[in-house]
Amino acid sequence: MATTGKQLFTTLEADGTLTVAIEDVTFPDPSGNQVLVRMEAAPINPSDLAILVGGADVENASYSSGKFVATVPEPANAGSRARHGLKLPAGNEGAGTVVAAGDGDAAKALVGQRVSCVPGNAYSQYCIADAAMCLPLGDHSAEEGASAFVNPMTALGFVENAKADGQDAILHTVGASNLGQMLTRICKEDGIGLVNIVRKDSQVDLLEKLGSTHVVNSSDDDFMKHLRAAIEDTGAFYGFDPVGGGQTVDTAFRAMEQVAVKQMTEFSRYGSTQPKRMFIYGRLDTGSTVLTPSYGFGWTLSGWLLFPFLQSAGQDIVTRMRKRVRDNLTTTFASHYKMRVNLDEMLTKEAVMDYRTMKTGEKYLVTPWS
Amino acid sequence: MATTGKQLFTTLEADGTLTVAIEDVTFPDPSGNQVLVRMEAAPINPSDLAILVGGADVENASYSSGKFVATVPEPANAGSRARHGLKLPAGNEGAGTVVAAGDGDAAKALVGQRVSCVPGNAYSQYCIADAAMCLPLGDHSAEEGASAFVNPMTALGFVENAKADGQDAILHTVGASNLGQMLTRICKEDGIGLVNIVRKDSQVDLLEKLGSTHVVNSSDDDFMKHLRAAIEDTGAFYGFDPVGGGQTVDTAFRAMEQVAVKQMTEFSRYGSTQPKRMFIYGRLDTGSTVLTPSYGFGWTLSGWLLFPFLQSAGQDIVTRMRKRVRDNLTTTFASHYKMRVNLDEMLTKEAVMDYRTMKTGEKYLVTPWS
Repeated sequence: MATTGKQLFTTLEADGTLTVAIEDVTFPDPSGNQVLVRMEAAPINPSDLAILVGGADVENASYSSGKFVATVPEPANAGSRARHGLKLPAGNEGAGTVVAAGDGDAAKALVGQRVSCVPGNAYSQYCIADAAMCLPLGDHSAEEGASAFVNPMTALGFVENAKADGQDAILHTVGASNLGQMLTRICKEDGIGLVNIVRKDSQVDLLEKLGSTHVVNSSDDDFMKHLRAAIEDTGAFYGFDPVGGGQTVDTAFRAMEQVAVKQMTEFSRYGSTQPKRMFIYGRLDTGSTVLTPSYGFGWTLSGWLLFPFLQSAGQDIVTRMRKRVRDNLTTTFASHYKMRVNLDEMLTKEAVMDYRTMKTGEKYLVTPWS
Repeated sequence: MATTGKQLFTTLEADGTLTVAIEDVTFPDPSGNQVLVRMEAAPINPSDLAILVGGADVENASYSSGKFVATVPEPANAGSRARHGLKLPAGNEGAGTVVAAGDGDAAKALVGQRVSCVPGNAYSQYCIADAAMCLPLGDHSAEEGASAFVNPMTALGFVENAKADGQDAILHTVGASNLGQMLTRICKEDGIGLVNIVRKDSQVDLLEKLGSTHVVNSSDDDFMKHLRAAIEDTGAFYGFDPVGGGQTVDTAFRAMEQVAVKQMTEFSRYGSTQPKRMFIYGRLDTGSTVLTPSYGFGWTLSGWLLFPFLQSAGQDIVTRMRKRVRDNLTTTFASHYKMRVNLDEMLTKEAVMDYRTMKTGEKYLVTPWS
């Protein structure tokens, strides 16, 4: 019995033409440890946007029912040459109900259950998913479980990473994001120091209500002074940044170094001996990262991605992390959505222009059957 | 019996006035495992220049006998606030003859010997040095031993670091430098792959004569193509850069990623899974480091300094490295000098304007008694 349904695809041609469209698809039967999930909700995360709208000129795109066609200007188009001509699915994660399973025991055990999953084509009415990556949601709604993977596991990953590196404090450059709020709750629960950088007073209030003790507003005149004080107080010489472009990382390194130099008893031409570590885990700003020569040589900057981290962390740690997410889905790991759209509504100009700005606290949820 | 002699000092005031001057000094008697070295030769390395001339406007400085006074413009002056008001010595390394020693056995054993040392005030007629850091030079001249520490140990350090990280190939962005030539000889001896980037055809010839198999000229039209081919051939996803500012590191990461993506069988929106690693170990360009978002998230960039590396490497490795330097001082680790100057000549406009440009292969040697 073939299962058919709607699915989103995104295709970039070599000439820079980006076509994002809903198509009717026949889904294969699940085999082995695969399950077929009837998808009920999938978030649009920043990590989904690159492949959805990338550097495309969506303002001047051509919109029609269930489809838009836009141009990706150079050099963004050339930078995406690895995907030229490929018709790609989109949507890292979502939640739905398992309607069929392969022969594997783990898969068969999930039939009829609502699960959170990470299929990579979550903007679809059905998905094939790996049973080992499915999280049974019990009585939770699909909306409550839709974002149970990317943000929760990333926020927990930061804390695991910090602990593995012997750190007991973290700096986060976009504190008020959905992920930042989770990180705030996790750090509070685990007794990890946390410096949250935000851009508005309302975000300071939001995080302080969550129990954050060190929230610094980058719009304040004496931002650097407050940032240094927060780093000194917590010992956060280790941080995570989803902005990527511009000088967000540079600002963090500069503040860390200024705190470290102040604590030195002797001048060193090479800067402090305090190791400073930052990770870029997103590209909210797709411009270049700019690092000024202001903090000596005792620093390390890396890209950070969830899946390579989970692979290196090993199964025991991942199992523990997932259990914690499931047990605290509507508290520590709760997500909030500004708007719900179906697959067709997701490709209207109004929606695209709004979710591509990735405003803090304004996440979209795709509900493929609504 | 007090020992007196000339020594160079560099002082930056809060208002940006930089004074570099030769003064008459009384040197203390060595104690414990210290020795007093009559300095005969000391190189001006790029790592010495920041403290000597920094961002100073040496073109419009006021020069007099054994002294110059220059202005360090903003923001460089503010960036150096940690040294404001401090009168600092200069000169990391040099060679000379031990004329007195403290009570320690290691120190007493060196009396009368010519040694290479790392006193931090090598631009001086005498220095107090740590006996444990002295390398007895045997019959070698002071000139042969003057640069026995910084460049040789740094080049060896790169190879030790690479091996410790499981790498069998290195990329070096300034291949024809004194250090680059040493690295070329070491990699050849140790069977480590090496991609050398240079800027001139004459430098290609120079390195090929030293046995370098992968020299790439950044002035060539098809530089990126050659760089990719060299990385593919050697597997050098791990490199060292003394430039710092601009896009030298970015170019290396981009080429590495392009090679890695070509080797992938499937498209990934996050870039290749090939880890890419670069280290900045100098600041020949004091501008900002610019990293374009062109190579996914599988990269790490760190500052690299010799002394922290030696501390983390441990005594056994350091002892083995130093023995190798001593045994190969005039071959693998030979340095060449463009010009010899005494302490007064070192502070003339002609000399300052020349050595501060840090041209490849044009190193100065300070001979304090000439």
